[in-house]
Amino acid sequence: MNGAESLVHSLLKSGVEVCFSNPGTSEMHFVAALDRIPGMRCVLGLQENVVTGAADGYWRMTGKPAVTLLHCGPGLANGLANLHNARRARSGIVNCVGDQATYHRPLDAPLTADTEGFARGVSQWVRTSSKASQVGADAANAVQAARTSPGQVATMILPSDTCWDDGGVVADALPVPAVPQAEMHAVRNAARVLRDKKNVLILLGGTMGTSEEAQVEANRIAAATGARLLAETSNAKFQRGRGRLQLERVPYPADVAVKDLSQVEHIILVGSKAPVGFFAYPNMPSKHYPDTATVTVLTRPEQDAVTALRALADEISAPKVAMPDAGPRPEVVRGAPSPEALARTIAALMPEGTIIVDEAVSYGRGFFPHTHAAPAHDWLQITGGAIGCGVPLATGAAIGGGGRRVIALQADGSAMYTVQGLWTQAREKLPVTTVLLSNRKYQILIGEYQNVGANPGPTAMNMLDLGNPDIGWVKLAESLGVEAAQATTLDQLADLMSQSFSRTGPFLIELVI
Amino acid sequence: MNGAESLVHSLLKSGVEVCFSNPGTSEMHFVAALDRIPGMRCVLGLQENVVTGAADGYWRMTGKPAVTLLHCGPGLANGLANLHNARRARSGIVNCVGDQATYHRPLDAPLTADTEGFARGVSQWVRTSSKASQVGADAANAVQAARTSPGQVATMILPSDTCWDDGGVVADALPVPAVPQAEMHAVRNAARVLRDKKNVLILLGGTMGTSEEAQVEANRIAAATGARLLAETSNAKFQRGRGRLQLERVPYPADVAVKDLSQVEHIILVGSKAPVGFFAYPNMPSKHYPDTATVTVLTRPEQDAVTALRALADEISAPKVAMPDAGPRPEVVRGAPSPEALARTIAALMPEGTIIVDEAVSYGRGFFPHTHAAPAHDWLQITGGAIGCGVPLATGAAIGGGGRRVIALQADGSAMYTVQGLWTQAREKLPVTTVLLSNRKYQILIGEYQNVGANPGPTAMNMLDLGNPDIGWVKLAESLGVEAAQATTLDQLADLMSQSFSRTGPFLIELVI
Repeated sequence: MNGAESLVHSLLKSGVEVCFSNPGTSEMHFVAALDRIPGMRCVLGLQENVVTGAADGYWRMTGKPAVTLLHCGPGLANGLANLHNARRARSGIVNCVGDQATYHRPLDAPLTADTEGFARGVSQWVRTSSKASQVGADAANAVQAARTSPGQVATMILPSDTCWDDGGVVADALPVPAVPQAEMHAVRNAARVLRDKKNVLILLGGTMGTSEEAQVEANRIAAATGARLLAETSNAKFQRGRGRLQLERVPYPADVAVKDLSQVEHIILVGSKAPVGFFAYPNMPSKHYPDTATVTVLTRPEQDAVTALRALADEISAPKVAMPDAGPRPEVVRGAPSPEALARTIAALMPEGTIIVDEAVSYGRGFFPHTHAAPAHDWLQITGGAIGCGVPLATGAAIGGGGRRVIALQADGSAMYTVQGLWTQAREKLPVTTVLLSNRKYQILIGEYQNVGANPGPTAMNMLDLGNPDIGWVKLAESLGVEAAQATTLDQLADLMSQSFSRTGPFLIELVI
Repeated sequence: MNGAESLVHSLLKSGVEVCFSNPGTSEMHFVAALDRIPGMRCVLGLQENVVTGAADGYWRMTGKPAVTLLHCGPGLANGLANLHNARRARSGIVNCVGDQATYHRPLDAPLTADTEGFARGVSQWVRTSSKASQVGADAANAVQAARTSPGQVATMILPSDTCWDDGGVVADALPVPAVPQAEMHAVRNAARVLRDKKNVLILLGGTMGTSEEAQVEANRIAAATGARLLAETSNAKFQRGRGRLQLERVPYPADVAVKDLSQVEHIILVGSKAPVGFFAYPNMPSKHYPDTATVTVLTRPEQDAVTALRALADEISAPKVAMPDAGPRPEVVRGAPSPEALARTIAALMPEGTIIVDEAVSYGRGFFPHTHAAPAHDWLQITGGAIGCGVPLATGAAIGGGGRRVIALQADGSAMYTVQGLWTQAREKLPVTTVLLSNRKYQILIGEYQNVGANPGPTAMNMLDLGNPDIGWVKLAESLGVEAAQATTLDQLADLMSQSFSRTGPFLIELVI
């Protein structure tokens, strides 16, 4: 058995079922092993940010790491931005990066690069396999690292001779470390805060902290104490809709966030970080909560938020309470698009169990209030601010979603970074409805430019405007095998969206906004 | 004057004229400064590998560094693969990467990343500006580093407060270090080798080593001594066609290279590296020249290859000789495409002074012999093996080419990594004719798979095949504003190519192969 075969067997034994792939020459023995050994679903991406972003989406829906197959340092580099987002989402991923043979590396052939150096900034675990007999054990270790709560990016680098040499040894799965529990003193501290302080904010973060179960417990606490509940600005997987809380997020714009949090005297962190600006701005505080506010940690991101919230609710003797009713489900709005009307229309149409992938950027900031009364759904966001995650995330979420409908709310500028992912959706016949928000500019940047103090002139607009030429989204999607149509009104959008739900494959609707 | 304004003024003073750009929030003050201060041509790319690859192409044609404008660590990461290629091409580029404000970075906001860490693997020079008053001087240093022979990647990281704070100081251009000359003993050593040894190979590399001037001197030496001349496998800018030598390259396939070099007893390196495999293969030597061959360096890549070759020719008293005639210009071939017939057709049609951008990968390995008798032209190759350089390189070469026609010979799989660059070609109305070689598979990898010892099965083919769905190249190009048509015969290709030469903007021909 060669090293590559031991790799595939070991990954399968550790429960890895999907390989998102963009292979090259140095990975051919890995490809050959995948070919010979049944059990791994292999999904090709035509650019590596599609591969890594899909692995992120897959983890968010399944809690299981996928493996990526990437080609040398530059192939890894092409996938770094979505690994950055995955790291911020605290997703578990096993990257397998092929590389020059151990003895060939010193010759500095053209594709030789600092693969470990590229990996380090996005990975909690990095290892370069040294020989075939080690590859299986390295793979088991990588999966264990990826599955360590809350989820980690593990990158193993595979010199090609470690794959083709004989002597591979299949490794058994290693135990997944238990999710750590909150310290009891943390629960008691938080209880004391809730008893003694006014204007307490409980800030929910992470997949555990924004889960329905966590919301049920947080709701008890809020009902008993009057504490305010909020989620972080960006969330990996937020369970929303009917049966869940009508929870808002810390606003993105600095001035709005500062104002919104101005009354907060104490923050209890549940898998979250105290709110700071996405960026700094001149004459604007970097921290968005008052200097006088104190901060208590109930759970760190890796700790069990649900159990901790339940313990906290019990500690303060908060009675069980029903989840608040979200009110009537919105209806389809007719006519010209607006963010609110679009959100209501989507809430009106989305099937139960929909997965929303939200890279709507500036247009999507107000979607939440209008979708609370939608059927229960999961809402996936861009977590690391590296735009270009939406199309890949939708792809991976669909593969991990077991047939659930994915609705991708996708800004046009961001879509262009990883548009290649549409092809993978077509090839895999994934149930993804993309609503492509076509405003033909980097709207968020035009807003930021105006914040600098002026309207953009021609040179600046040349860098902020996506028109000239307009991108033909219907043609672009069709060229990649995705059925597509344009809508200029919400009526048209609603019709097309309903049609898309009956398709077995992806569908893109260009909504001109 | 704020830091950003001092940056733009300093870059202009140092002779930087073009900014390839993909900005974000943290770069808005830089964008605003570009807006206010005239003199810089700003070119938007919709993904960062387009930006960095275009800067590479621009340098190759002009020998002048462009500046890139990139957004934080992940924005830089998206451009790393083509910076890797640029580093291997020894191109000069100044990257300006915006980043979190100095005081905001410790808060670890979502987009915070190890920007310096990402930069290091591709940059010979990295500096993070610390305050506004330093930005101008840092920019002048970066340009000096980029222009240091043979050309370097210089990355300056600009925390946003260093751009918006007052106190910017414009820096004067720093002197460009002279191109170092070869050591005299290196010339004498090479002369001794040529006098004493048989089966000497003179291996030309780098833009200086493959220039027409270098070829004239190398031709004297070869004519006088019988030494063999070859170029490296991958070349940044190779001057070819009528009036130049009919020079071949070290073959890419390992077995072919080993056989081709089997008689070599001595190698004289001229800005080149001794030939090693692009990858290692089992039971195949890593070095492609005989173990018994000795190696002499005439010039290192940063040294003046032309002067050294002239000195060497004089040292051995080689008479001046005419450049060999390339024979009659090929004619357009009719009928079904083949690599040879395509090369002859392009040789028949290309205008004098054409810039060929070659990312034809496996299909293009045999193009050279059939294009020696074409009009004088420059041939740009993928230098670092990170595919996805072709479309950006063509974009930047057109901007640096002063109206010269660019013909991009582009494999389909590789094109998909940076297809967004077509949009920039359309926006800038660049004279680029792309011949898109559409074989709907990663042909090079299928060959490599077969080398592993078997034909790919369904799982492997699922990772090597680009059909299902076929990419609609004409639609794809049109969706990005590029006129396009399909050809299935070389007659059609020739007609379309001739048409494209009369257009003011880009044109893509999908050649089904």
